[in-house]
Amino acid sequence: MVPVNPAFSATRDDSDDRARDRRTFESFVADVRVCVDAWLASWLDVRVSEARRRGPDVTVVADAVRQLVLRGGKRMRAVLLAVAYRASGGEGALDVVAPAGAALELLQAYLLAHDDWMDGDDVRRGGPSVPAMMRARFGGESLERGSRSSTTRGQHRSDAASVLAGDLAAAWALGSMLELTIAPARVALALKELGRVEADVVQGQVVDVCTASADRADVEAGYALKTGSYTVRGPIVMGARLAGASDPQIESLIAFAEPLGVAFQLRDDVLGTFGDATVTGKPSGGDLKKGKRTALVVDAVRDPRARELLSRVMGRADANDSDTAAAIAGIEESGARARVEERIASLAGRALRELERARLTPAGRSLFAEAVVALTERDR
Amino acid sequence: MVPVNPAFSATRDDSDDRARDRRTFESFVADVRVCVDAWLASWLDVRVSEARRRGPDVTVVADAVRQLVLRGGKRMRAVLLAVAYRASGGEGALDVVAPAGAALELLQAYLLAHDDWMDGDDVRRGGPSVPAMMRARFGGESLERGSRSSTTRGQHRSDAASVLAGDLAAAWALGSMLELTIAPARVALALKELGRVEADVVQGQVVDVCTASADRADVEAGYALKTGSYTVRGPIVMGARLAGASDPQIESLIAFAEPLGVAFQLRDDVLGTFGDATVTGKPSGGDLKKGKRTALVVDAVRDPRARELLSRVMGRADANDSDTAAAIAGIEESGARARVEERIASLAGRALRELERARLTPAGRSLFAEAVVALTERDR
Repeated sequence: MVPVNPAFSATRDDSDDRARDRRTFESFVADVRVCVDAWLASWLDVRVSEARRRGPDVTVVADAVRQLVLRGGKRMRAVLLAVAYRASGGEGALDVVAPAGAALELLQAYLLAHDDWMDGDDVRRGGPSVPAMMRARFGGESLERGSRSSTTRGQHRSDAASVLAGDLAAAWALGSMLELTIAPARVALALKELGRVEADVVQGQVVDVCTASADRADVEAGYALKTGSYTVRGPIVMGARLAGASDPQIESLIAFAEPLGVAFQLRDDVLGTFGDATVTGKPSGGDLKKGKRTALVVDAVRDPRARELLSRVMGRADANDSDTAAAIAGIEESGARARVEERIASLAGRALRELERARLTPAGRSLFAEAVVALTERDR
Repeated sequence: MVPVNPAFSATRDDSDDRARDRRTFESFVADVRVCVDAWLASWLDVRVSEARRRGPDVTVVADAVRQLVLRGGKRMRAVLLAVAYRASGGEGALDVVAPAGAALELLQAYLLAHDDWMDGDDVRRGGPSVPAMMRARFGGESLERGSRSSTTRGQHRSDAASVLAGDLAAAWALGSMLELTIAPARVALALKELGRVEADVVQGQVVDVCTASADRADVEAGYALKTGSYTVRGPIVMGARLAGASDPQIESLIAFAEPLGVAFQLRDDVLGTFGDATVTGKPSGGDLKKGKRTALVVDAVRDPRARELLSRVMGRADANDSDTAAAIAGIEESGARARVEERIASLAGRALRELERARLTPAGRSLFAEAVVALTERDR
């Protein structure tokens, strides 16, 4: 028998385990996407057919929702919901929770339609945003082209249609949840979380859009409402509720979800400034030009040099490339990026420790551990 | 013994019965209002307190929803829901369904916030509309008062806040439903109806706001979606579902609700043109100046004289009083008003016949019969 260095052996086994867990997670993610996409495609086809009976304009609005939803996105919320369902002992094939994952995707479409209208964003998921689709339909429709009043009327219609497209997606989110074949008592608890998330994210959006920059001491609170509650905690609690998790189990999952939600959002901040545009699909330095007061900016402006460089770019959509590059370098040199990276690692560590304490199936715990890596170490 | 004319006796008894039924209905309506208002006041207080922790802007948005909801309205949808609950054998004090009635009021606040923003209406329920409240907060907030870009920024913020206030009310509608202490399977079926209603009313709004006048052959379909489904059918089906009504019972209630919904909407059309402004709280001829293609207008324009008079007023907010009065008289003289009144009476009759066929508690059936009168013979 060949003597084995125990340390080496442990390392090799660990690494094998990690690789296997990673593969298991990736195939789980792929399965969730297939289920959710299949549910969305067939369910939305029926919705759009119903809309067709209500005239061409309703069809265009309904189809814009369908297009945005089917164009993709990472389906990350649906994945977290499915992991939580499995980890809490939920049974059956993944199809069982597909209508709930789909509901989260529809809720996301609702928020994106309203956000893109508020922010004036024309591109979303590599295609026209909902407001851009609505302008193509309603903005140019006026017969009296060129007159101010007619332009205003077209604009008014496309504004209204953008908001209504979002409203329709929200109604459909509720509709999809109610297609679940899980015990109604569990569905009701999951819906309660959905309603809470919806109220949180809307209030976060109020802070984000309506609160003037000067008053934004509480901007972090707004971010926590928008991302923390909505992207991580909400889907996890919903999945666990659908599996019939007890209140103490839910509590321990919330203790896990909260640091993960903040870490996720900090990774978003890093990618929004330092991300590779060819991977993220978003322009380099985009957050700066939009004037977003991210965690990076809040940290960096304490450094006078970085503050000066940032002032030339923050909130200026037309900032030139060299000023943008200098501002990005200024954040790096101020040490803000390193500190945010440290904080992400520390929050991810806290999430993993909470995960150890939670009562979950072993397979579910591994999936969650991989999800932590995927959410906090991603590059897009 | 004094001989009694049997016909007279029957008439007297009928009339006594009617008066008693009317009093019973009125006291039922008053009870529902008390329960729903009490629930809304205390539940919304908690919501606004939560919002307060999220900063002053979130508080203003949340409080605008609260103000609009508590300012009243007829609570008609909550009443119909409660009647359907009772008539379908639902048990307990009326408080049991108050969270569902409150949810309908919150859904109404959501639609009003979005509608008033789309239509540019500044007054609602005798006070400032949500967009007017948002403009008071955000529209004048800019430091660079008077410059075009700052005005645009304030306007943008108050537009966004109006939409978000509506979104918040929608999230709260779901939240209130989930406070019901009724069996979750029943709540789930009621929520399914709520989701259906929400999708219908949003699609009706698309027809109403986005479809150009010239294409509005299907305007009636839009009205049916907005009023028929939402105001009458939805609340009735929800109330019956909460009482555990069977599918055949639901079917017979829908057969009753559908003609009633159309009759209700036709009464709205009549009041919007011929109503006494001091009673309706809406300006005389208001529908005409807004350019609404009501059933009255669709009928009257077949008469050349009425069409000519209407063309001076339709869609003209600044139409003068004498032209408005002439257009109103033109509708009357064309016979359109009489025909619409006939149609209301015929639809109310059909609703009452369907009511006889439905399996309901005797007390519930009387309440519904009085509701038909209240909804189709109202003067406001």
